[in-house]
Amino acid sequence: MIGFAIFGAGFIGTVHATNIAAHPRAHLRYIYDVNRRAAEQLAQRLRSTVASSPEEIWSAADVDAVVIASSTNTHATLLSQAIQAGKAVYCEKPVDLEIERVKSVVQEARQSPRPIMIGFSRRFDRNHLAVHEAVQQGEIGKVEMVLLTSRAQEPPPLSYIQVSGGQFRDQTIHFFDLACWLTNEAPVEVYAAGAALVDPAIGDVGDVDTSMLILKMPSGALCHIDNSRRTTYGYDERIEVFGSRGMVQSRLKPLREISLYRDHQVISPGPYPSWFERLEPSFATALDAFIRVLEGQQVVYPTLLDGLRAQLIAEAALLSLRQNVPVKITYWQPA
Amino acid sequence: MIGFAIFGAGFIGTVHATNIAAHPRAHLRYIYDVNRRAAEQLAQRLRSTVASSPEEIWSAADVDAVVIASSTNTHATLLSQAIQAGKAVYCEKPVDLEIERVKSVVQEARQSPRPIMIGFSRRFDRNHLAVHEAVQQGEIGKVEMVLLTSRAQEPPPLSYIQVSGGQFRDQTIHFFDLACWLTNEAPVEVYAAGAALVDPAIGDVGDVDTSMLILKMPSGALCHIDNSRRTTYGYDERIEVFGSRGMVQSRLKPLREISLYRDHQVISPGPYPSWFERLEPSFATALDAFIRVLEGQQVVYPTLLDGLRAQLIAEAALLSLRQNVPVKITYWQPA
Amino acid sequence: MIGFAIFGAGFIGTVHATNIAAHPRAHLRYIYDVNRRAAEQLAQRLRSTVASSPEEIWSAADVDAVVIASSTNTHATLLSQAIQAGKAVYCEKPVDLEIERVKSVVQEARQSPRPIMIGFSRRFDRNHLAVHEAVQQGEIGKVEMVLLTSRAQEPPPLSYIQVSGGQFRDQTIHFFDLACWLTNEAPVEVYAAGAALVDPAIGDVGDVDTSMLILKMPSGALCHIDNSRRTTYGYDERIEVFGSRGMVQSRLKPLREISLYRDHQVISPGPYPSWFERLEPSFATALDAFIRVLEGQQVVYPTLLDGLRAQLIAEAALLSLRQNVPVKITYWQPA
Amino acid sequence: MIGFAIFGAGFIGTVHATNIAAHPRAHLRYIYDVNRRAAEQLAQRLRSTVASSPEEIWSAADVDAVVIASSTNTHATLLSQAIQAGKAVYCEKPVDLEIERVKSVVQEARQSPRPIMIGFSRRFDRNHLAVHEAVQQGEIGKVEMVLLTSRAQEPPPLSYIQVSGGQFRDQTIHFFDLACWLTNEAPVEVYAAGAALVDPAIGDVGDVDTSMLILKMPSGALCHIDNSRRTTYGYDERIEVFGSRGMVQSRLKPLREISLYRDHQVISPGPYPSWFERLEPSFATALDAFIRVLEGQQVVYPTLLDGLRAQLIAEAALLSLRQNVPVKITYWQPA
Repeated sequence: MIGFAIFGAGFIGTVHATNIAAHPRAHLRYIYDVNRRAAEQLAQRLRSTVASSPEEIWSAADVDAVVIASSTNTHATLLSQAIQAGKAVYCEKPVDLEIERVKSVVQEARQSPRPIMIGFSRRFDRNHLAVHEAVQQGEIGKVEMVLLTSRAQEPPPLSYIQVSGGQFRDQTIHFFDLACWLTNEAPVEVYAAGAALVDPAIGDVGDVDTSMLILKMPSGALCHIDNSRRTTYGYDERIEVFGSRGMVQSRLKPLREISLYRDHQVISPGPYPSWFERLEPSFATALDAFIRVLEGQQVVYPTLLDGLRAQLIAEAALLSLRQNVPVKITYWQPA
Repeated sequence: MIGFAIFGAGFIGTVHATNIAAHPRAHLRYIYDVNRRAAEQLAQRLRSTVASSPEEIWSAADVDAVVIASSTNTHATLLSQAIQAGKAVYCEKPVDLEIERVKSVVQEARQSPRPIMIGFSRRFDRNHLAVHEAVQQGEIGKVEMVLLTSRAQEPPPLSYIQVSGGQFRDQTIHFFDLACWLTNEAPVEVYAAGAALVDPAIGDVGDVDTSMLILKMPSGALCHIDNSRRTTYGYDERIEVFGSRGMVQSRLKPLREISLYRDHQVISPGPYPSWFERLEPSFATALDAFIRVLEGQQVVYPTLLDGLRAQLIAEAALLSLRQNVPVKITYWQPA
Repeated sequence: MIGFAIFGAGFIGTVHATNIAAHPRAHLRYIYDVNRRAAEQLAQRLRSTVASSPEEIWSAADVDAVVIASSTNTHATLLSQAIQAGKAVYCEKPVDLEIERVKSVVQEARQSPRPIMIGFSRRFDRNHLAVHEAVQQGEIGKVEMVLLTSRAQEPPPLSYIQVSGGQFRDQTIHFFDLACWLTNEAPVEVYAAGAALVDPAIGDVGDVDTSMLILKMPSGALCHIDNSRRTTYGYDERIEVFGSRGMVQSRLKPLREISLYRDHQVISPGPYPSWFERLEPSFATALDAFIRVLEGQQVVYPTLLDGLRAQLIAEAALLSLRQNVPVKITYWQPA
Repeated sequence: MIGFAIFGAGFIGTVHATNIAAHPRAHLRYIYDVNRRAAEQLAQRLRSTVASSPEEIWSAADVDAVVIASSTNTHATLLSQAIQAGKAVYCEKPVDLEIERVKSVVQEARQSPRPIMIGFSRRFDRNHLAVHEAVQQGEIGKVEMVLLTSRAQEPPPLSYIQVSGGQFRDQTIHFFDLACWLTNEAPVEVYAAGAALVDPAIGDVGDVDTSMLILKMPSGALCHIDNSRRTTYGYDERIEVFGSRGMVQSRLKPLREISLYRDHQVISPGPYPSWFERLEPSFATALDAFIRVLEGQQVVYPTLLDGLRAQLIAEAALLSLRQNVPVKITYWQPA
């Protein structure tokens, strides 16, 4: 049994905490949240314990790993402390919006022998996983084109957009990671185009809500990503990988497998209404992968460096959008 | 070039005549119809010639084969004459509604060395053909269950139903033939249930418009057929064959391959609106098969005996419907 | 919070117990199994308590409802005791293989004011529920035909078949219930055909493994059911309801929504491999419905009489199979 | 009846000629080809007449319209002559590879009162037409993103690529036109990325075989196009239009609507093997539209200016590819 503590009893924290509680080889020992009442309610429901301070968790001998699901501005500090305390970490992305701060944490993490996983949970969606496996096994030959679609059902509040850093930093970032994961490559260049077509107010705060990007991979493969902040038909996330021997798709997943035939039409339910309903199971799969890593299994998982890589692509994309030129991407390695 | 004459310049006659005219290895030499004006119009359009009498066709040296697409009550006589004249024949089904009359023609045909093909054109639908090929090649192993769906868009006129002999004799008969063709077997027994749910007037003339049947094959395989005279969503014809190694389906064929995603729904066009639009290409494929038979190729095609077989099943089904018991089917072979 | 006890710590008992433990408004107070070790292991995992005897449960003031998931031959007795003790009951089907015994329990249950639900969990599958809702809301008009497909991935052990009463009593029975639930009718007559095509040994013990049935509804609607004990492509359960205004289908549910395009083919994953993987979520939905019934909500649920009804159809189907005639079905009402 | 003459008895010329011959309101009076034998064979098959010179056609009173399907380098001259002769024209694209030459013909055509249609036959594919209609009728609201996929089954010969001007000029050009047609806009800017991944020899002659483009529309809408010269699964052409109220797709069209379920897989036929098999019916639909234009119906059709527009986009795309910057597109109007 692996002893866990969790930072953050909000929406995502509750998801992780519930998954830990339900996992047959994990034990949720502590919950910490600056909102103590939220921590208490969650602890009561899951029969866990509230930690009175982060220090209580760092010094707890029965805590092997922590999940960081608190607000973004606390991630870097908690990561540093976890590294110091020798705890394994599952950290929601991003580590920090400041790239230099992320680099500093990545540098620190070099010292830690414990696994640190970044929460790119889409990698653990069963459909995407099956696509990844097909690609890795050579089912489609050499990858030549990747097409990624990311369309959220409705825009987040403006306040969120201002804090998150905008569409590329909070939405597209998952797909930057998927592009690298699927191709085993990191793009050398990105071109981005976009506009605020859904809501002019999003444009007023300096962001776009509708965008398309082209990434160039070192192998010559090309990657397209399209993003929207709003659909009328539900959450739309799709992957297509085209290669020298074939193509594989992670298609839209319908909410129900029913069809109504009437009046010369076939009417079927659309996809899952929101990203969370669509991707909820991937959080449990991601946690399970993390636990298997801790148990010593050979599992490839998203690392801090993968998180930084996606952020560097996002920054380059933003620059491209603003300057309307393709932008070369420079990566960074810890010393 | 194979010289053709056609009897019947009505709807189906026109379809066949047009296909003959367009076939690179066929020549439509004569058209005959008791309605001379109809024959003339068709002849003009297709640059063919009107025959003044059937005899002109029987004695024409440049007529190798005839298509019989005139009214049902003329089929048997024309077939006899064609056999006497040594012409190959493509005859629309049925030969005659009187079983004894059909047997008599089958007996006569024993004398003829020329191919006689009965118009079970569904066997030549490309999707159904591909299912047939998969089954024959053992892709699904030993056949255990066959499911056939036959739902017309709207009921024919009552006058037609009274002449045609009813649902089993004019609609289900194609599927009795498909069941035999797909399984390489003829059913030993049939059970039929049905009612006039679409239009009570159909019940008043002694027929049903909604029915289900179970056929038992000698191998133990079972076959289901469901029939309706009316849908609101277009013409619905499907085949499913289930066997020891798998299942193969000829699915609904949509009118257009487009999808509209809106308001949490996916809306797509239904199937082809009517049987003719759905099956139109199969008439050309059937004609081409007939021509290849005449050219000496090894092509399996529906024979007069196959037509009689389907009729005998229909008669047994009708008896079963009326007596509400399963009915054994006795087949007949020419001497 | 509703206090639960469960009888049976086997496969299905474990499923129910886990669902109770995870339900936010239920509390699993006791587990009983004649195999005490099994009960203990389950109790430890779910932090529940082992009951030393059924009586302990019947007299427990904190037990409001029981789930009966023990072996079939114990159902009737436990039901009687639960009725005496005033407990609500969720009982796995069947109540008993002896029809007279079932009637006797139904009669007793007339005395009980507490809800008794029979475990027809397919009614709670989300896709089937959506089909049911469409039909009830008149989306397809008046029901004219129902087509139900039930194909298990592999035959159960012969020993199970001998105890369960065979294909109609253990497999088709769920679909007899679905037919009634979907149409709001009970069939007046059934015709059944079948054979042991999958495994002759199944025939040797007097059962069939491949079968087709036609049910006649009082309204004139017809219902087809086909059953197989084996597929090579996974668990195949489908519903199609055809009516005067349209058709609605609960389609095959694919294991993954991915497609591989290669070598002129599209290859996609088949359906869920087994009935349990396909229907697992319906057990939780069924439990939730039961809890909502206990909370006083208006929820239509499968009753003891529904269970008896399905069994009476199964008995008539068996008679039909043996005598090869359609058999009228007589229902029974408690005094 | 509209009298037609055709220039070119090659592959596409034969397609057009056959469609004219089959059209009930058209008459194919003359065929001209520098290869007289080809013209004679086609004329014999279609019962038409060989013209001994273009002049014979220009002066023929019974020729109302001509189809130009000869080699590209003859298009501009024939167009000029047709304009002089007062004939209506259906001209295969492009008018000429030299933009200035095209402009000059467009300028001349200003004088002609007769319709001149450019052969963007994809606009007449039934699926694409239905998508176009949905968009024009506002079914998806305001267009925000267009995604176009164009993947040919195999690369043309190197010799063709050298003559045609490369991927953007011979393949993508159809999709530049579709983008404009679907959005009722012409892009203001294009960014193109590409490489020779399929065959290095294509790179050696200065072209790419794998490419992605982003077009910016005046409204802010974005358009993605991806191109490949090779698939292993057949011809892949798809359209997706995403708007403020929904999304509509012209999906892959499968060769057959059959599915084989076996070994936990569903195997279905891929799309049509090549562009011609997929798009063949659109040539007849395009011809029919042209004839309806000649008959005075209000039909929107692709004009010489539309052809020039697509070429100007292609030139800008090529510049973008070479310079790796987005390139603004300047259009041209005749005086």
